[in-house]
Order: sequence, then C-alpha cells, then structure tokens
Amino acid sequence: LIDHLGIVGVGLIGASIGRAARERGLARRVTGVGRSKQSLDQALALGAIDSATTVIDADLADADFLVVATPISKVVDAVARSREVLSTSSVVTDAASTKAGILRDLAHRASENESAPFVGSHPMAGSHRQGPSASDPNLFEGRTCIITPDASTPASAVERVRRFWTSLGMRVVEMSAEEHDERIARISHLPHLASYALALSAEERDTPLAGPGFRDTTRLAASPAALWAEIVRENRSAVLDALARYIQNVDELRRLIVSEAWGELEKRLTDANRRLDCRDSED
Amino acid sequence: LIDHLGIVGVGLIGASIGRAARERGLARRVTGVGRSKQSLDQALALGAIDSATTVIDADLADADFLVVATPISKVVDAVARSREVLSTSSVVTDAASTKAGILRDLAHRASENESAPFVGSHPMAGSHRQGPSASDPNLFEGRTCIITPDASTPASAVERVRRFWTSLGMRVVEMSAEEHDERIARISHLPHLASYALALSAEERDTPLAGPGFRDTTRLAASPAALWAEIVRENRSAVLDALARYIQNVDELRRLIVSEAWGELEKRLTDANRRLDCRDSED
Repeated sequence: LIDHLGIVGVGLIGASIGRAARERGLARRVTGVGRSKQSLDQALALGAIDSATTVIDADLADADFLVVATPISKVVDAVARSREVLSTSSVVTDAASTKAGILRDLAHRASENESAPFVGSHPMAGSHRQGPSASDPNLFEGRTCIITPDASTPASAVERVRRFWTSLGMRVVEMSAEEHDERIARISHLPHLASYALALSAEERDTPLAGPGFRDTTRLAASPAALWAEIVRENRSAVLDALARYIQNVDELRRLIVSEAWGELEKRLTDANRRLDCRDSED
Repeated sequence: LIDHLGIVGVGLIGASIGRAARERGLARRVTGVGRSKQSLDQALALGAIDSATTVIDADLADADFLVVATPISKVVDAVARSREVLSTSSVVTDAASTKAGILRDLAHRASENESAPFVGSHPMAGSHRQGPSASDPNLFEGRTCIITPDASTPASAVERVRRFWTSLGMRVVEMSAEEHDERIARISHLPHLASYALALSAEERDTPLAGPGFRDTTRLAASPAALWAEIVRENRSAVLDALARYIQNVDELRRLIVSEAWGELEKRLTDANRRLDCRDSED
C-alpha cells in the first residue's frame, strides 16, 4: 500500500492511474500536479486525485511513490525536480513511450546528492483521446507494462515499481531502455505512422464509405499530432529503422503486384497471417 | 418479400445473408448452393438456408432473387450460369469487393437471349474470419452497400437490389463500377496491404508485447491470403495507384523525420487528424 501517491501530469494516463489506484485501494492519498487548473479540477471531480497543485514542491515531499505522466518533453524536468523534493526512500517512475533518451538525459543531470531512485516505465495502454475526461480506471487491466531498470537501479525500487503496475492489473516485462525503444518503434510508433499515412491517402469524400477495416487501421491517425511528433522525435533513429523496413515490405508487395506474381503475393500475405499467430489473443 | 431466395456460396457472407434474410422474414424460402458438403451442412444447421445443392440447376429456376457470394474468381461463372436457369423476371446480384472486371467479363458473355438482369453489389461488411460458422445475421446492420448499375440496367432491377440490401439494414450508395473500384482501392484494398506489411515488419518476439494499436492496425493482416491476393489481382491498376500514393505519403513522413522537420511533421499529422473528421462516426 502506498501512503501518498504523487502523479505529475493529470491527462488521460495520469488521471487513469489515479482512478485505478484509488478504486483498488492502492493509495491512501493521491496528489496531482498539473499545469492547467481545468485539468486539475476535472481530475478532482473524477476522483482521480484528492488534492491538486501546479508545482512540484513541499506538498509532495512525503510522497512515497511518484509517477510522472507528462508529455515526453517534460518528463526529464519533472523527474529531476521531483527527486529534489522527495526523500530517498521514495521511488519515481514515468509513463512515457520512449525510454533511452530520458535515461540518458537524467544521467547527465545526476547530482552529487543521493536522491530517490528512478525506474523507467512504459505502460502500454492508451487512447487516441486526451485529457482527464477520457481517463478510465480499467485502462491498464490486462495490458503490458515495460520497465527499463539498468545496472545501477536498486533492486528494491525495481520491485516496488513492478508491484505498482501489477496492482493496476498489468503484466510487467523488463528489458533495457534501448531494446524497449527498438521494439516499440516496430509495434507502436511504426503503426502510428502507417496509420497517419493511410488517413492521408484517403480522400475526404471517400471516408464516409469506409467500413470497419478502414476505421480500425486509421484509428491511431486520430492520435494527437503534437504528442506523436514528439514521440517520433525522441525515438528518431529506431523509428527510422522501423520505417525503412516497413517501406521495404510495402514496396515488395507493390513489386509483386506490378509483376503479377500472384502466387508469390499470396505467399507473402500468408507469412503476414502467420506473423500474427503468436500475438496476444484477445478479441 | 422474396418468395425464393437463391444464395450461391455459403461462406461468411452468403450464410450471413441467409440468416439475416430469414430472421427478418425477408424470404419465404432460401436455397444455398455450395461446393463443400460441410459448408452446406453448417449453413443448414445455422438456419442460413432451407435447402442445399451443389449445382446451379432447375432447383433454382423459380428463385425470384439470387445473390452470388462466392470468391471473386468464381463470380462471373456463377452469375452467367444462374442467368441461364433463372426466369427473366428474377434479379441477380453479387457481393464481391471489385466490380469493373466482373461487369466487363459478364458483358463479353452476354447471350442473344434475354436473361435475368444483373446489378453489381458490394456490401461493405465482413470479417477476417471465414466460413458459415463465422456468419452473423447482423453483419450488415448499419453498414454501407455500394451498387453499380450502368446505363443498360433496368430501373426496376436496381430498385429491387437496393430494397434487398436496405432490408438487411444497409445504407445503399450508387456509383459506377470504375468509381467503386478506385475509391475502394483507397479505403479497403490499400488498408489491407498496409496492414499485411505492418505485420511483416514486426518480429515474432515483438507481437506478445503489442498493445491495442498494433492489434487494430494488423487485424486486417489476419484476412485470408488467397482471397486477398485475388481481390488485388482483380483490382490491380486502382490498387497500384492507391499504393503509389500511400508510399509517397509514408516516404514524406520519413523524409520529415530524417531532416528533423518536427514542425512540418506535426502539421502533416494534423492533416491526417482532419482527414478523419468527416468519416462515419461510430465508436
């Protein structure tokens, strides 16, 4: 049980964490830090947090667990600032979609003083909608959370972070920040870009005709543009690798169609069918 | 009301049509034509059809409405054969995902004798699953059906086909076969190929990590390879146009990332957001 949970950033993810933690009796008290009064009020009204503040300060000093759930560009500052106010017995984690850059930047900021340990997390759950009003206390249920400790992370901190996400219903997987970024580029960042490009390839007059296939494949293209430009920027090199591989695959299908190699085309589509056999079955 | 409905092909679509028509009291009697005894037995057991046969023959002579719901490569033969046995007061339609090639091939086969009129249809509903066991009497509810009559199609036949799909709960839209093929290439055939390529770009060990975004964007890649190779073959030139446009869009995103043009990237992603604003809202 957490006595005092701090959540920096009360958007979709932060507010969902607060609601999930409170509904499950996981935290005795939750303080939310946000920039906008409107989001904080919504988070309070939804019961995601018990008290609200706009700055990371003494109010959070006794938080024994703190999650930074801001947009990526604010994570490093928020984590560094939190570690200045928290006691060393606390633990800090985040919820950002990229990991290596954050760890690298935090390492550069490490002060001489001992501070609360940080463990990088990426709870793989979300929505194309934004803000506390889109929050859902069951958002994390049955989903995967990747945590990315390194050799210097205290085992007890890793264990507490693991237990936190598990308590929200998640399956926790551990890997290095670099491996995380590379794999997530392929299965999350690339699908977003592919989906944005699909939406751009349709004509406006076509979309009212679209069936469930179009709807599913372009759902991600409704995701916030600013947020995704930032994620791609942060994970640029892994995203470019994944994109290069994707363009190669699309172009291979195109060449088979150009050359009317129908047997070969069917074989590649069958490969794709098989590639999915081992995915999480959940329909 | 249809007195005798014929359905050639009792897979997912054919069996769903039979079940929908019977549940809605739309047809007094339904005969199913199939190649496999197993599918016919399943269709009978599910109540999709009242009687089963493996050939298009005298059993169907008095059918007043007939739907061909076979794979594309069999549609032209099945339609032509049906028109030989049906009376001229009957109407024939199909359910294939491409239209221009079918109409062209049928025109080449037109006999001297008058025969039942044909109206091309594409009910835009489906599943990545196959066979009568995957059928669903509500498959068509709320979906769009495109019909593609031409100048020579009798107005009364168009009206009967329109009424048929409307009775299954569909919204019916009329356009030329060529326009259909071009627009459907962009919003259905292209999303399938993009989805197959995404599945091919993931590594097997990645897929268990995948979240709902990956699941949605690769759902279509679980579609039957043989069926989709055939659809692409049938609509080759429109599919190649759509693919060329898609590759251009993906490559533009890639170039913006390579050149670190983050503001431009965000602008393109915002364009994609907007492109979806006018789609059928149904969540």
